[in-house]
Amino acid sequence: MSTIPFDRDRALALDAADPLAAFRDRFLPQDDDIVAYLDGNSLGRPLASIGQVWNDFVQQQWAGRLIRGWSEGWMDLPRTVGDELAAATLGAAPGQTVIADSTTVCFYKAMRAALNLRPGRRRVVIDRDNFPTDRYVVESLARDLDLEIVWLQAPPDSGVTAADVRAVVDEQTAVVTLSHVAYRSGYLADVAAITTAAHEVGALVVWDLCHSVGSCEIELDAWDVDFAVGCTYKFVGAGPGAPALAYVNAKHLDRLDQPIWGWLGRADSFEMAQGYVPAAGIGSMLSGTPSILGVLAVREGAAVIAEAGIAAIRAKAVALTEMAIALHDEWLAPLGFSLGSPRDSAHRGGHVSVVRGDARELSPELIKAGVLVDFRTPDAIRIGLSPLPAGYAELWDAMDVMRRLAR
Amino acid sequence: MSTIPFDRDRALALDAADPLAAFRDRFLPQDDDIVAYLDGNSLGRPLASIGQVWNDFVQQQWAGRLIRGWSEGWMDLPRTVGDELAAATLGAAPGQTVIADSTTVCFYKAMRAALNLRPGRRRVVIDRDNFPTDRYVVESLARDLDLEIVWLQAPPDSGVTAADVRAVVDEQTAVVTLSHVAYRSGYLADVAAITTAAHEVGALVVWDLCHSVGSCEIELDAWDVDFAVGCTYKFVGAGPGAPALAYVNAKHLDRLDQPIWGWLGRADSFEMAQGYVPAAGIGSMLSGTPSILGVLAVREGAAVIAEAGIAAIRAKAVALTEMAIALHDEWLAPLGFSLGSPRDSAHRGGHVSVVRGDARELSPELIKAGVLVDFRTPDAIRIGLSPLPAGYAELWDAMDVMRRLAR
Repeated sequence: MSTIPFDRDRALALDAADPLAAFRDRFLPQDDDIVAYLDGNSLGRPLASIGQVWNDFVQQQWAGRLIRGWSEGWMDLPRTVGDELAAATLGAAPGQTVIADSTTVCFYKAMRAALNLRPGRRRVVIDRDNFPTDRYVVESLARDLDLEIVWLQAPPDSGVTAADVRAVVDEQTAVVTLSHVAYRSGYLADVAAITTAAHEVGALVVWDLCHSVGSCEIELDAWDVDFAVGCTYKFVGAGPGAPALAYVNAKHLDRLDQPIWGWLGRADSFEMAQGYVPAAGIGSMLSGTPSILGVLAVREGAAVIAEAGIAAIRAKAVALTEMAIALHDEWLAPLGFSLGSPRDSAHRGGHVSVVRGDARELSPELIKAGVLVDFRTPDAIRIGLSPLPAGYAELWDAMDVMRRLAR
Repeated sequence: MSTIPFDRDRALALDAADPLAAFRDRFLPQDDDIVAYLDGNSLGRPLASIGQVWNDFVQQQWAGRLIRGWSEGWMDLPRTVGDELAAATLGAAPGQTVIADSTTVCFYKAMRAALNLRPGRRRVVIDRDNFPTDRYVVESLARDLDLEIVWLQAPPDSGVTAADVRAVVDEQTAVVTLSHVAYRSGYLADVAAITTAAHEVGALVVWDLCHSVGSCEIELDAWDVDFAVGCTYKFVGAGPGAPALAYVNAKHLDRLDQPIWGWLGRADSFEMAQGYVPAAGIGSMLSGTPSILGVLAVREGAAVIAEAGIAAIRAKAVALTEMAIALHDEWLAPLGFSLGSPRDSAHRGGHVSVVRGDARELSPELIKAGVLVDFRTPDAIRIGLSPLPAGYAELWDAMDVMRRLAR
């Protein structure tokens, strides 16, 4: 591709022409020893505004208002910020999204809720390359609820297609659960088509958006998704261990039945009455008290995504991953690397994996040299490209270090 | 009692003689309109150090170290801070406590783990005045696992005794779950005796420490408790929605089996391998990623409790609640109030409830007048006395406002 910058000046010119360049200054500075941060898809960099938001919250809201804060807005935050994130980038109308718990706990609740809507069906479809927490939760549910797991296995540089799903689902299938973007290969699944394939046999879908939210365009309502969960400390940048998002399609809300019946999910929580009665709507996805600081950080992330626009963010993610692939082909492939990610950007999220047998040993060397990547078993170096903080010259420098260290 | 300060000068003298007085300055200032904060048992006031800890974390750790932070200590924090809180105030040896999730989610996992250790037994004992989230989770488990709930009902100003428990447990009882301090009456349960009563029939106990941790002396190991959970945003002061504590007695760790199988609870998480294999020890109580900021705030709370000493904290809680009861008797009882809490401090935690039919209407008037209390259905005003930030004159002023408003 003629636009790929094999010399650094061209990468600098791309940074200069980047319509999102101004957003790079919104983030707090990283340590000087970092050449390139290629892990924004694992832990996003902090917006400078988050430090201020948290400090104001502690000094004024928590210290000043104290318990009054709950009735002055905190109690609504899991729902209102859920709606804000939904409007910014989930393609979901209000009233279907909350910010709460962790991805694992939200996934557990969403899976149980989906299974409860398909009583009598015993099969769950999931893929072997899904993120471990999703696989482990499904294994736990299979044991506890006597379900049968149907394991899909896509090629390691790819992911599951609608045809793959259609080949295994039937009237015994309760739920199909997959990741929108595969955590290792970066494969971008066709959510609409796979959801349709599941619905054709009367099954429901639970989508894991961890590696897509804040980086890829998402249209949960238009795609007719049943349930979705996702992480907010990756591309949304809400901080280590920030609460997750959970989406439930409005059509299921009147029969929503998740198993962790907590006081915050009950109608009229503060009546503290006998007997659990689920709150109306998405509120019954809540169980205990979510971290208010975490929810406020999600609000900051959602606001900056809305301001930049997810279409522009996605366009930059495509451009950055195209450049990473071109530099891989030019510099790394001759050194014995292969690409572990789709070449077609229509099937690729915001990261790429490059594969070589010594990736486990090479990754810490790269990190020591200031190129922060992830090693992913068995043999992949994952290059995560978070569009708002990342730059073209930063990526060029990283790939330059990589080609020199990998000789 | 002769030591009770019916005049304000005597309350000031008690403040001056308070061995813990210096700790009051460790907390951030509250709004000027607050006469007395009597809700530290619901949401603790922030230590000034927490703002600094969080700011340093954001600016240096998160922004600077980024993903490296996980391998530089963050990953161990749920366990290390669990041990720190255990040493400060749980009476628990290392390796049995984690900080994670919410109380509700930890309670769900602990109850399921306890039930898994007693297969074939179908009864769970709980009391009607237990905190709602505990009751609701037990109801959910009863539905999903076909359990029978045995409901205890103590008088409203009291709580469940070992004799009450002994009267209902038998060889069908799997789990007895109660609160150490009752959220409304403040009744302080005899954990050791009740645990013994449960163990006599082969049942296990799951104790909710939400309203005692950081205020009462707790000896989980010595009391032979099986499982415990608790809240860190009350007397521990870790902030709204801070993660909870979960304790599992070492004798159960090799068979610990909780249902939310997440990646952080697996052995060798970052191998991301096929098939869930629980981590050794308490680590398998983890599911998803806990809030690192929340865990760091728990560390601050645990450190200040350790520094003050839980025996001194408990002594001040007794003195403050004694004073509240004496002022109730002198000032409020003639106005038609009655005491909704035990008179014997050996059976009373760190708060007292005063009861009158119009409590629902009176509470917002008190709050408007700067006396921040909790209304608890149906007729109680709850006076929470967090020993480290609270003072005797503050309590005197609150009760003075109360007697004038309640006329």
